[in-house]
Amino acid sequence: MPHSIALVGIGKIARDQHIPAIAGNADFTLSATASRNAEVGGITAYRSLADLLQAAPDITCVSLATPPQVRYGDARRALEAGRHVMLEKPPGATLSEVQALERLAAEKGVTLFATWHSRHAASVAATRDWLADRKIQRLHIDWREDVRHWHPGQDWIWEAGGLGVFDPGINALSVLTAILPEPVHLQKATLSFPANRDTPVAVDLTFEPLGDAPITAAFDWLEQGPPKWNIHIDTDAGNAILSEGGARLTIDGHETSAGEDQEYPALYARFAELIAAGTREVDLSPMTHVADAFTLGRRVITAPFEW
Amino acid sequence: MPHSIALVGIGKIARDQHIPAIAGNADFTLSATASRNAEVGGITAYRSLADLLQAAPDITCVSLATPPQVRYGDARRALEAGRHVMLEKPPGATLSEVQALERLAAEKGVTLFATWHSRHAASVAATRDWLADRKIQRLHIDWREDVRHWHPGQDWIWEAGGLGVFDPGINALSVLTAILPEPVHLQKATLSFPANRDTPVAVDLTFEPLGDAPITAAFDWLEQGPPKWNIHIDTDAGNAILSEGGARLTIDGHETSAGEDQEYPALYARFAELIAAGTREVDLSPMTHVADAFTLGRRVITAPFEW
Repeated sequence: MPHSIALVGIGKIARDQHIPAIAGNADFTLSATASRNAEVGGITAYRSLADLLQAAPDITCVSLATPPQVRYGDARRALEAGRHVMLEKPPGATLSEVQALERLAAEKGVTLFATWHSRHAASVAATRDWLADRKIQRLHIDWREDVRHWHPGQDWIWEAGGLGVFDPGINALSVLTAILPEPVHLQKATLSFPANRDTPVAVDLTFEPLGDAPITAAFDWLEQGPPKWNIHIDTDAGNAILSEGGARLTIDGHETSAGEDQEYPALYARFAELIAAGTREVDLSPMTHVADAFTLGRRVITAPFEW
Repeated sequence: MPHSIALVGIGKIARDQHIPAIAGNADFTLSATASRNAEVGGITAYRSLADLLQAAPDITCVSLATPPQVRYGDARRALEAGRHVMLEKPPGATLSEVQALERLAAEKGVTLFATWHSRHAASVAATRDWLADRKIQRLHIDWREDVRHWHPGQDWIWEAGGLGVFDPGINALSVLTAILPEPVHLQKATLSFPANRDTPVAVDLTFEPLGDAPITAAFDWLEQGPPKWNIHIDTDAGNAILSEGGARLTIDGHETSAGEDQEYPALYARFAELIAAGTREVDLSPMTHVADAFTLGRRVITAPFEW
């Protein structure tokens, strides 16, 4: 008997990823949606999660694909109603609110899953394994895309709490924290804010070296043409490029791992596992790096951004 | 036999607070200092902690009163050398680096104590107890002081990572997190940055209401005259003002608790307890609120600041 699941926030990511991933997973049936002004053909639609929770007590799972600034209220509502909850990344607007959700989920004995979809890209696990017995000499993240192409008209992303270029950049940080043999932490950050926006359009990060190895990252939202979602890693035994957001691993010029995009199917499979095991999965380390960058970072004002 | 302790960073807070507190505690003997360009009369002085650790293996404890931007390197050095470490507030420039120190201290089996001196102000415990069986209806923190008086010439506080007005404000947050019966988290923040500085001079915080009770804070660094370090609390059974940074509690107009300043003596007493018990104390909740405010906050540019 599949879990009856509701999807909240019917925007681009819901249509592109969540709906097909749920449709392809035998453990879940999409029973309803909640969205202020969007519907999915053939699925019962509610205007708010509060209405949905009251009208449909048989829906046991809720997946939240709303912007992070408003995710907390819905997540809390769903957990208080005893439902299992899955959160798009980033899991909230603040670290403290996600910690509060984690306590609430534990109290209620339900599953809370803070997802990081990029960790399930096809070559992330292979990269982690390849690194496990090597000494890193240098690691650089190059994460550049055209915000106009990838987030057309998404104004929430430019509003305080929307993270700006950290919205894609946190994907890189979720991969970084998954492949490194030990944790790192920031030493320096520069955040470039468009004069008319509340979140950064470009970011440079310098982590404390791992041993002697520099660990750096550059995020940029004004890249023209195809996106660059690459992590370059030099080691004592070969140089690797993890590219296409984690999909493809090239070692010393030879492609050694690749696969089709199964990120969101993997997330829903993991959600079903966590529910079956009666456990939670909330790793805040990518979001902590972002909070650290905002805390530590030097702010630079750049040209205004208009769509 | 008292612990032999070294004090690192001989600035205003070291002279005003740490040195007298160590002198007044029979569990510690101040054996050396490390500071780039300052000394304490009659105490062996080193130019760096690295030199000190190598020259004085009998010094078992290290207290760090350096600015947060440079605290990590020294803390790590001391922990790796197997010494017990006490950190001034805030315990570092980033959350992740303090988490790294905590792991290192656990590995080495030594004490790490991230201090919050304001939690030991004379009336904080009385306020927590008074609140325990009351329902809060409104709480407002008013934390205003003159940076020119309290931090004369401390340029590091205006540099990225120096926290700006959060440097005093985090004291208020350390008290808030100690007196509330349950955790809160930020909903909204406005950070005012002087046009020529990298940290905020004023901050307004709105937390998610506790039940229906608004929880708010205003930090301001341009207050003229005496400082206002006050927390106003309305409850269903009386209204309180915790004033003078936590020293004085007034309930319904009557002073009910007060005492002399024993904050730093209490910190060193606690450090000795932790060493004796072989444990650590690292509560990151005040710093997490600050990181959340930087992450979530809307930035406003205000008049340049000059000393």
